[in-house]
Amino acid sequence: MERADRDLAFMLQYENIAWFADGSVKILDRRCYPRKIEFVTCTHYTEVAKAVTDMVTQSAGPYTAAAMGMALAAYECRNESEAKQRLFLQQAADCITNARPTTAKRMGQICKTMLSAAEAAWDSGSNVSEAIRSRAIEANNARYRKIETMAHDLVERIPDGGTIMTQCFAETIVGMMLKEAKRTGKTFRIFCPETRPYFQGARLTATVCYEMGFDVTVITDNMPAFVLKNEHVDLFTSAADAICMDGSVINKVGTFQIAIVCNYLGIPYYVTGAPDLVHPSANDVKIEFRNPEFVLQAMGVRTARDGVKGYYPAFDVTPPELVTGVVTDRGVFDPHELNRYAALGGSGEYEVVV
Amino acid sequence: MERADRDLAFMLQYENIAWFADGSVKILDRRCYPRKIEFVTCTHYTEVAKAVTDMVTQSAGPYTAAAMGMALAAYECRNESEAKQRLFLQQAADCITNARPTTAKRMGQICKTMLSAAEAAWDSGSNVSEAIRSRAIEANNARYRKIETMAHDLVERIPDGGTIMTQCFAETIVGMMLKEAKRTGKTFRIFCPETRPYFQGARLTATVCYEMGFDVTVITDNMPAFVLKNEHVDLFTSAADAICMDGSVINKVGTFQIAIVCNYLGIPYYVTGAPDLVHPSANDVKIEFRNPEFVLQAMGVRTARDGVKGYYPAFDVTPPELVTGVVTDRGVFDPHELNRYAALGGSGEYEVVV
Repeated sequence: MERADRDLAFMLQYENIAWFADGSVKILDRRCYPRKIEFVTCTHYTEVAKAVTDMVTQSAGPYTAAAMGMALAAYECRNESEAKQRLFLQQAADCITNARPTTAKRMGQICKTMLSAAEAAWDSGSNVSEAIRSRAIEANNARYRKIETMAHDLVERIPDGGTIMTQCFAETIVGMMLKEAKRTGKTFRIFCPETRPYFQGARLTATVCYEMGFDVTVITDNMPAFVLKNEHVDLFTSAADAICMDGSVINKVGTFQIAIVCNYLGIPYYVTGAPDLVHPSANDVKIEFRNPEFVLQAMGVRTARDGVKGYYPAFDVTPPELVTGVVTDRGVFDPHELNRYAALGGSGEYEVVV
Repeated sequence: MERADRDLAFMLQYENIAWFADGSVKILDRRCYPRKIEFVTCTHYTEVAKAVTDMVTQSAGPYTAAAMGMALAAYECRNESEAKQRLFLQQAADCITNARPTTAKRMGQICKTMLSAAEAAWDSGSNVSEAIRSRAIEANNARYRKIETMAHDLVERIPDGGTIMTQCFAETIVGMMLKEAKRTGKTFRIFCPETRPYFQGARLTATVCYEMGFDVTVITDNMPAFVLKNEHVDLFTSAADAICMDGSVINKVGTFQIAIVCNYLGIPYYVTGAPDLVHPSANDVKIEFRNPEFVLQAMGVRTARDGVKGYYPAFDVTPPELVTGVVTDRGVFDPHELNRYAALGGSGEYEVVV
């Protein structure tokens, strides 16, 4: 996969990698990483959608997978008439968009962008699959540049020798933040809640932090208040599955309660990401409930007895009054003033994450 | 073990059972319950102390184990002179008292009570071991009566058809609360956070609730805020490892953050237990840090990669302003007015938990 302006090893190691090449999409299986490094190979776009549904990849991974899935779809129907290709790609867009409820709006935007890349290719008579793939890579590189800006603004807010707390994996921004810290000669301690039931914090975030040379400590999800109160934490930060235009943050379940604790203790909470122009408010976002049985086990071992119920909301909503600042690709904003972010932009079309 | 005024099966099933008979103390191994029902057998008091250190039993279990360990110590030295027995029992008291830092004060009180039972036995020439054992059972039965009072006052505050959230196992009070609810014809839903890293909520609390016929749901420890906000929870309740006289609650780590969330959302938090006259304030309590490696695994499966640190404070401190009421054996008190509780009592000597 071309990543002209990025270090390939860096991105391969730390990103929710997914790419299209030679008639298939390969997706790093985050469910067993870092214990095992395995890829799920998809030769039909429905398999890409299924991989997203099955949590093979999370965080920003599904968006890259969606774009690459559209390239795969174009490859699959390459020998059909343009009319049939158009129909096939539309079906692929619908299927991939709805792979997971919470990501549906963003996935829809991405698939739409990929469909316009296809239109341009049909107009110019070029290879449709290649055109989609190039558009995906271009958007990804644009996204990395934006996240680099966020990382810079975030690191400015962390005192050298200080302590921060993260929540869930936060994908590219964690790597970028640490890279920026190293560039500017800063160091700090990182506390990572383990993020049940998938342990993304223990498995993924902590791995990135450790491999980039930082002092990293995993805690269980009932310990943030203790640590925030007793370990001089300077700042809590998370990425977001969606930042609504009213300043509400949709992120991995648990973010809300850590933000409440930070508010109680007077510790700032900075969320990183681009406000979603397609989400006016949190009311507009459907919170995804996953298989409740999954919370009744840990690392594959059953915890509760038969008959006990589970309950698995994947995300929660943090209201704007608990958010100190939204660290965007266009500067840091008060969560109540995201209209200013929108005003700085051009079309308002969503294209930060692909 | 005699439990004249309790149903034996009920207590055996739901208590952190430990008893002395035929020259040994048997302790139910809570580390594998309910998956396996196994007992640790101790034939020397140091093994009782070690079982407490090794978390074979938790919650109120260590206190019963301490008293029974003293009966065992008296049995061990039964053929020595009274002077030697006195020395041996004092050594046993010191050893058992210090089995776990957080429980040291309570354990000290219990061992002291058992030493006075021994003194009385020496004076009257009766069997010392039997005297200690009888004193332990008597104190336990007195404790059950007190917890029954608490259960009554707690259940009065839960609306029929309502929803509550618990935290950690809360031993006897959970069983008593549900028994009282059934007696008064009330039912309610129960959400149990799983309580990492030992999963006491998933393994123990949920088992008790289910087996007593209640609708019980386990959630991971990052979900309380979501559930409290979205599932119409009427009340959060926990027991306590210590309730200080200034109204601070020392309990399983995670209690503090759930209490902060309840305060933010306007949901009452009732703690059950007897205020500890020996603990004037939280400053007086040493929070126990356990083996940090233990948070880097779940149900025996490693979660984080080598090199990543762990951190394991077993308890946290919830300040009185986050506590709606302290449900004691002498009524429900404002956490700032626990001096009124003390004034109602007699000697002030600690003897609620044995």
